[in-house]
Amino acid sequence: MKLVPEPTIRRFARYLRLLDQLSDRGENTISSTALAQIAKASPSQIRRDLLALGALGTRGSGYPIHSVARELRKALGVDGVRPVYIVGTGRLGLALSQYTGFQQRGFRVVGVFDNDPRKVGTSYGRLRIRDIRSIAKDAAKDRPIIAILAVPAPSAQTVADTLVDAGIRGILNLAPALIKTPEGVVVQNVDITTDLLLLGFRIDQNRR
Amino acid sequence: MKLVPEPTIRRFARYLRLLDQLSDRGENTISSTALAQIAKASPSQIRRDLLALGALGTRGSGYPIHSVARELRKALGVDGVRPVYIVGTGRLGLALSQYTGFQQRGFRVVGVFDNDPRKVGTSYGRLRIRDIRSIAKDAAKDRPIIAILAVPAPSAQTVADTLVDAGIRGILNLAPALIKTPEGVVVQNVDITTDLLLLGFRIDQNRR
Repeated sequence: MKLVPEPTIRRFARYLRLLDQLSDRGENTISSTALAQIAKASPSQIRRDLLALGALGTRGSGYPIHSVARELRKALGVDGVRPVYIVGTGRLGLALSQYTGFQQRGFRVVGVFDNDPRKVGTSYGRLRIRDIRSIAKDAAKDRPIIAILAVPAPSAQTVADTLVDAGIRGILNLAPALIKTPEGVVVQNVDITTDLLLLGFRIDQNRR
Repeated sequence: MKLVPEPTIRRFARYLRLLDQLSDRGENTISSTALAQIAKASPSQIRRDLLALGALGTRGSGYPIHSVARELRKALGVDGVRPVYIVGTGRLGLALSQYTGFQQRGFRVVGVFDNDPRKVGTSYGRLRIRDIRSIAKDAAKDRPIIAILAVPAPSAQTVADTLVDAGIRGILNLAPALIKTPEGVVVQNVDITTDLLLLGFRIDQNRR
């Protein structure tokens, strides 16, 4: 697999989301100009990106949504389904366990875990909350390589260590804490507060 | 205010989060090397960033956590409190309405809104869910400039239009849909699925 830079992946993911939206609305084609307007990229950038994917537009009618989406899925590696664990069943963890958008992008939540004995064993949607202490044993069967960490900040590092021991190769960290992992285990931080902060900043700069 | 590039703001926000964590644990100083290790930046980058803030470390004992955090807060414009609205009281919207981390970063959720008559008027934590139809009137009093959009994809654009009409200057978009806003209204997309996707990608690249 080629090393694809992060901004390109982000753009591809944005295009895919947009095309899926348009497809849901019954659209069949889109022009690079229209795509550019909604995706906030220049039309020439979009044409370059789609050309790199081997997707060709037709003058006048634009790009065929369905086949471009298929190519994007292939390029993004979301044409299969990857099993994902969620650890922490607070409001955010439970919200994500029910989120249907993951499946559309090739991820399937196959297990949710907590350490609270009052929660373990209870069901939430199609998932039964499992005991964090059984995660290594369960992971040997379910073979998830990704876990979503949605625990409070003070337990983030301990739980991350447990995940690494269980063979997890990537952690989506939603805990409001930075975590350390050994070489070879990737962490992606999701920090909505930082996004709010950035937004506040951009508003201030926009006003001047 | 100087135009600060987005990567710098993201780094500053990361440092601040880290310093607050360390401060909660009772630490008073930190070396640029230790900070670099957790913040995933080079020690020289960190020294440059902190120097730009006017923060000086002491050879041997490192940087004073409390005063560096204060300078970061000033630089990030989070030394005051900004009122924020949340629109959409599904699982994610409600989870965010209770999130205490916002306040620490200078944001305060002052109103939550929904269009569901069964929800409007009910209370959730310290907040009563208000009717989306009264948002323009309420905003004239509360003066929020930021709104968090946490509605389903099909209503995202309509609700975004309502927010713009109510005078909102920035939207943190958590709806799984891209939205259009007029010039002067900033949108920051939060897309956890894209982050998962990026993570999956980075794991694949890491394995080669």
